[in-house]
Amino acid sequence: MGNKTQGSSSKCLFFFFSGSLSLNLLLLYLSFGRQSDRLTWTRTAALEAEAVASLSCSGHGRAFLDGIGFGSSQGEPACECYGCYGGSDCSELLPDCPADADSGDPLFLEPFWMQRAESSAVMVSGWHRMSYQITKGTMLSIELEKHIRKLHSVIGNANETGKFILFGVGSTQLLNAAVHALSYKTLSPAYVVATAPYYGAYETQTKLFNSEDYEWAGDTFQWKNTSDSSLNFVEFVTSPNNPDGLPRHPVIQGPFAKAIHDHAYYWPHFTAIPSMVDEEIMLFTLSKITGHAGTRFGWALIKDEEVYNRMLKYTATNTIGFSHESQLRALKLLKVVLQRGGRDMFQFGYTTLSDRWRKLSTSLSLSKRFSLQKIAPQYCNFFQRIREPSPGYAWLKCEMEEDEDCERVLSGAGIIGRAANVIPRARMILRAKLQFSVASL
Amino acid sequence: MGNKTQGSSSKCLFFFFSGSLSLNLLLLYLSFGRQSDRLTWTRTAALEAEAVASLSCSGHGRAFLDGIGFGSSQGEPACECYGCYGGSDCSELLPDCPADADSGDPLFLEPFWMQRAESSAVMVSGWHRMSYQITKGTMLSIELEKHIRKLHSVIGNANETGKFILFGVGSTQLLNAAVHALSYKTLSPAYVVATAPYYGAYETQTKLFNSEDYEWAGDTFQWKNTSDSSLNFVEFVTSPNNPDGLPRHPVIQGPFAKAIHDHAYYWPHFTAIPSMVDEEIMLFTLSKITGHAGTRFGWALIKDEEVYNRMLKYTATNTIGFSHESQLRALKLLKVVLQRGGRDMFQFGYTTLSDRWRKLSTSLSLSKRFSLQKIAPQYCNFFQRIREPSPGYAWLKCEMEEDEDCERVLSGAGIIGRAANVIPRARMILRAKLQFSVASL
Repeated sequence: MGNKTQGSSSKCLFFFFSGSLSLNLLLLYLSFGRQSDRLTWTRTAALEAEAVASLSCSGHGRAFLDGIGFGSSQGEPACECYGCYGGSDCSELLPDCPADADSGDPLFLEPFWMQRAESSAVMVSGWHRMSYQITKGTMLSIELEKHIRKLHSVIGNANETGKFILFGVGSTQLLNAAVHALSYKTLSPAYVVATAPYYGAYETQTKLFNSEDYEWAGDTFQWKNTSDSSLNFVEFVTSPNNPDGLPRHPVIQGPFAKAIHDHAYYWPHFTAIPSMVDEEIMLFTLSKITGHAGTRFGWALIKDEEVYNRMLKYTATNTIGFSHESQLRALKLLKVVLQRGGRDMFQFGYTTLSDRWRKLSTSLSLSKRFSLQKIAPQYCNFFQRIREPSPGYAWLKCEMEEDEDCERVLSGAGIIGRAANVIPRARMILRAKLQFSVASL
Repeated sequence: MGNKTQGSSSKCLFFFFSGSLSLNLLLLYLSFGRQSDRLTWTRTAALEAEAVASLSCSGHGRAFLDGIGFGSSQGEPACECYGCYGGSDCSELLPDCPADADSGDPLFLEPFWMQRAESSAVMVSGWHRMSYQITKGTMLSIELEKHIRKLHSVIGNANETGKFILFGVGSTQLLNAAVHALSYKTLSPAYVVATAPYYGAYETQTKLFNSEDYEWAGDTFQWKNTSDSSLNFVEFVTSPNNPDGLPRHPVIQGPFAKAIHDHAYYWPHFTAIPSMVDEEIMLFTLSKITGHAGTRFGWALIKDEEVYNRMLKYTATNTIGFSHESQLRALKLLKVVLQRGGRDMFQFGYTTLSDRWRKLSTSLSLSKRFSLQKIAPQYCNFFQRIREPSPGYAWLKCEMEEDEDCERVLSGAGIIGRAANVIPRARMILRAKLQFSVASL
């Protein structure tokens, strides 16, 4: 019996031993076997990024790798709080804080990218593209250009076939690059115009450079019936328009009238895509597509080779090209956007904005003091159905005689908007930007 | 004896079992225990970066995350070969290929960054700084500004105390921003000048914008004895100078003469640092410090608040700030540079460039046909010793009467240089850029 017990305990021991041995083999494989999974020089940077991402800011702020924050004298990343919040973890609501709806920050897409953390992350090595050039002789990433063309063709918003593509430091840099190219060696200085209400940068940028080749000439309204057909015009046409979200076409006609078509908002989260546009110069910006305003990346689709070459020379002379880090990241982001034919991101954006618009317009429909622009539901080729409005900005009108200064009326109620850059026709109106407000509506 | 054997084999089994169990515990810890080391959403991007970095391009090329290459129809990263090399792994030396020394690409620092792969890598999350702003109300990273100030104070090349710091898309954007600020509201258009030989961008940029506020007026030579003291001048002063590496001071004096001090090369790998400069406007660029030309990141130290505000407005209007990805990476790179008081990188750069210069000047000292600029050894406050010359560019002169077109003489010998942008005084000279050539000297 002693032997029997000894035998069975030996067997038992043997059983455990074999089990332990097998476990060892498995663990050995897990620890050292998956060679392809083992990281070396990227590990520290990856850990740093995950550590920063894991900091909790109470849903009212964000920590970034290059951030400094509350109580952090060492420069270690800490929470940076959104407007109206404070404290080391952004949990304190600040008293008497106005809702800032002035900025055009496209943060409504931030949650989309947080949900796609893995597919949208990029690791930049210390020696990544140090040269001025990317592809031999150019400062543009060919791979990125290819993905931009694919994006236009998948969304169906603009015809890229046969067009030249030029990048820019945001589409902002390309605004003046295009004005420069279209006014180059004209017989008289070109008149740069736009139809009110228009995006303010057209005016400030044109005036800043104070060029002999062009000058700011204000609203097209003053010029559309001009009898002098020898005048050179460069017209900014923003469609859908910033701020009112309505479709736009060139107003100035004539042999010397040229247009720059700013299609920053011609994407399915902001507007229906009823047709594919196909114009001489079309501008787009990553800021208003994926929401990455800080990346400062935009592009132009250009028909004419000479215009393209002039604009290329402009960007080369102004900034010697465009950040290689921005180009690398834009490529990664567009790859994510293109997954499932772009449906995920544009659907997410559309749902968010149309929801906000519905709430805002429902509230204001009860008011006799304020009114909003009217946007009708429209069939969208991309979504293949009729879609509700979801404009980038609310274009608010103060209806009462005594509310002449609409901006002040709203600021009195704790809302910061942006005043109209012109006074079109009748009364002072206010441009309060809607969708980008971090404060929930 | 049977019992004894059985006993000893039991003991033996027990011994192995305990050993196996301990190994189990160790491996369990290695596999799952180091929670802080386990990566989640950053893993894929890190693996992608390591995979690309591990591609071998025979030492004659490089593969990048956003690259396409030879035979790669899928857009998967492949080798991109340096000039004069081809084939899928860049192992083929192309016949009759000229040595291209025209470009100012600072690739001589690439090996330094490859050696510091771990400390210089950056992981960019999909939601990293999407906003236009970085710190509330600004488009500049405060943390980066702090490191820039620290860099100047550690190197001792420029006095940053009390100065405003403005970033730029390279220092390139800041050249014209400064011209704009200094010529704003002058009574007559400012004359923009530089002393030959000078960096060509001063002229091309000033002419491109064709502003009513300023005009290109060429070499200071024509103006230094002007009797009209009411003229406004904006003088570019590059010190050490591009291309000849010599120290420079403003030439134009007078009540309306202002200078923009371009100190792109005033760093210890290019030149001795005999003193700390302290001027009204001083420009610097990451390109010529760490070698990251493609990052398009530069900065200005500015004394006067009004000039600073004008330049800030220029950059805000021209490009709405600067790539957040570039700023994040610049910060990481400067952190590496600042390790051990900057000695590692600047010593590496100095050794590389002074070695190339010694070889080049030794070869050319035997020639009666060519001569190089003379640079004397000089005491450097940073290295705290006398250092040999290590200029950024070789400034070559063709000495023989018949070699009037010096550029053609060299190109006949298979060397591409850059011709002088002006013909100063006597004969045609050639600016052949030296240190940035990928071809070994």
